[in-house]
Amino acid sequence: MNTTDTQHQTRMQRKKEVVDARIAEAQEERGVLILLRGNGKGKSSSAFGTLARSLGHGQRGGVIQFVKGRRETGEYRFFRDHPQLDWHIMGHGFTWETQDRNKDIEAAQAAWATAEQMLQDENYHLLVFDEMSYMFKYGYLDTAPVVEALKKRPRHQSVIITGRTMAAELQDVADTISTVQDERHAFRQGVKAQPGIEY
Amino acid sequence: MNTTDTQHQTRMQRKKEVVDARIAEAQEERGVLILLRGNGKGKSSSAFGTLARSLGHGQRGGVIQFVKGRRETGEYRFFRDHPQLDWHIMGHGFTWETQDRNKDIEAAQAAWATAEQMLQDENYHLLVFDEMSYMFKYGYLDTAPVVEALKKRPRHQSVIITGRTMAAELQDVADTISTVQDERHAFRQGVKAQPGIEY
Repeated sequence: MNTTDTQHQTRMQRKKEVVDARIAEAQEERGVLILLRGNGKGKSSSAFGTLARSLGHGQRGGVIQFVKGRRETGEYRFFRDHPQLDWHIMGHGFTWETQDRNKDIEAAQAAWATAEQMLQDENYHLLVFDEMSYMFKYGYLDTAPVVEALKKRPRHQSVIITGRTMAAELQDVADTISTVQDERHAFRQGVKAQPGIEY
Repeated sequence: MNTTDTQHQTRMQRKKEVVDARIAEAQEERGVLILLRGNGKGKSSSAFGTLARSLGHGQRGGVIQFVKGRRETGEYRFFRDHPQLDWHIMGHGFTWETQDRNKDIEAAQAAWATAEQMLQDENYHLLVFDEMSYMFKYGYLDTAPVVEALKKRPRHQSVIITGRTMAAELQDVADTISTVQDERHAFRQGVKAQPGIEY
């Protein structure tokens, strides 16, 4: 080995010690609450990717889409027939599309009723509440019963909640929070939303 | 309708006009280069979620994992048998695990050779180069041939590249860039990495 290679090896040995020590410290085993927020592209897709990961280990998953009402999305087509997964499309479109506050509230409450049942069902390893955060932003759901149900859920159950803005009460009880920041988006450069990328 | 409902409807009508106008402006149809960077959780899972979306529309996908060498991940188990997908695990672990610079470089160059072929193959709609950015960070690959191959790829082909730091030369030619920021991570609160969430 030449000097560069030896230096590299020494540096990496040191790095490995640091990494190993951190891994040794994290030994608690339980489900986690993950919040994916921010204005950037990649929040819902990240939740669906984690779902694939979970299903790959033979775990059972549940998805509730709080806003989307479309059934022709790639994600729904791809996942809908999976035997270990329950997928509920309970939104009926963005609130600026529906323009009807009362119907929005009705849809939100029906979605939450389903979500609440899932949070009591220990068969589910991973739940995805896609775009749920808009329900709090528009005042369609209260945070208190949601936080309560999240706290009481089965210990091994993980939950991912997505949406641009995230209620403070949810952040208080989250284990992992990632903010996805929009640095650049093809849409603003005139590229049309396309199947397989945006939906 | 009461006043609040009418106000809501008026606000949402206005919002819909703004949204519709922006949609009307974005009419170019082509594949995009998406970079997912940052220290937060959710980059690779976002790429795999987009892959599910793409496969759901009957498109063909290709994945190269530049760092991970493990085959027992949930994502690999879940996707590996899909008939419309080619998944290559070409890394052999984090560089601080291998501690061998020459072997790392060999693995990086073999992975790039496969990636380059995929970028010339118009059967692929979506390519995921998972954790490729580390190859540039450690100097295992040059950016110039990668940028060149990205520019020459089939017009309908989209590419997602993930990794903490992202080479400036790639950012110059990207259509969409999201930075995933780590606000909080269960790992730092003592929760062990678990199947279905971290791998």
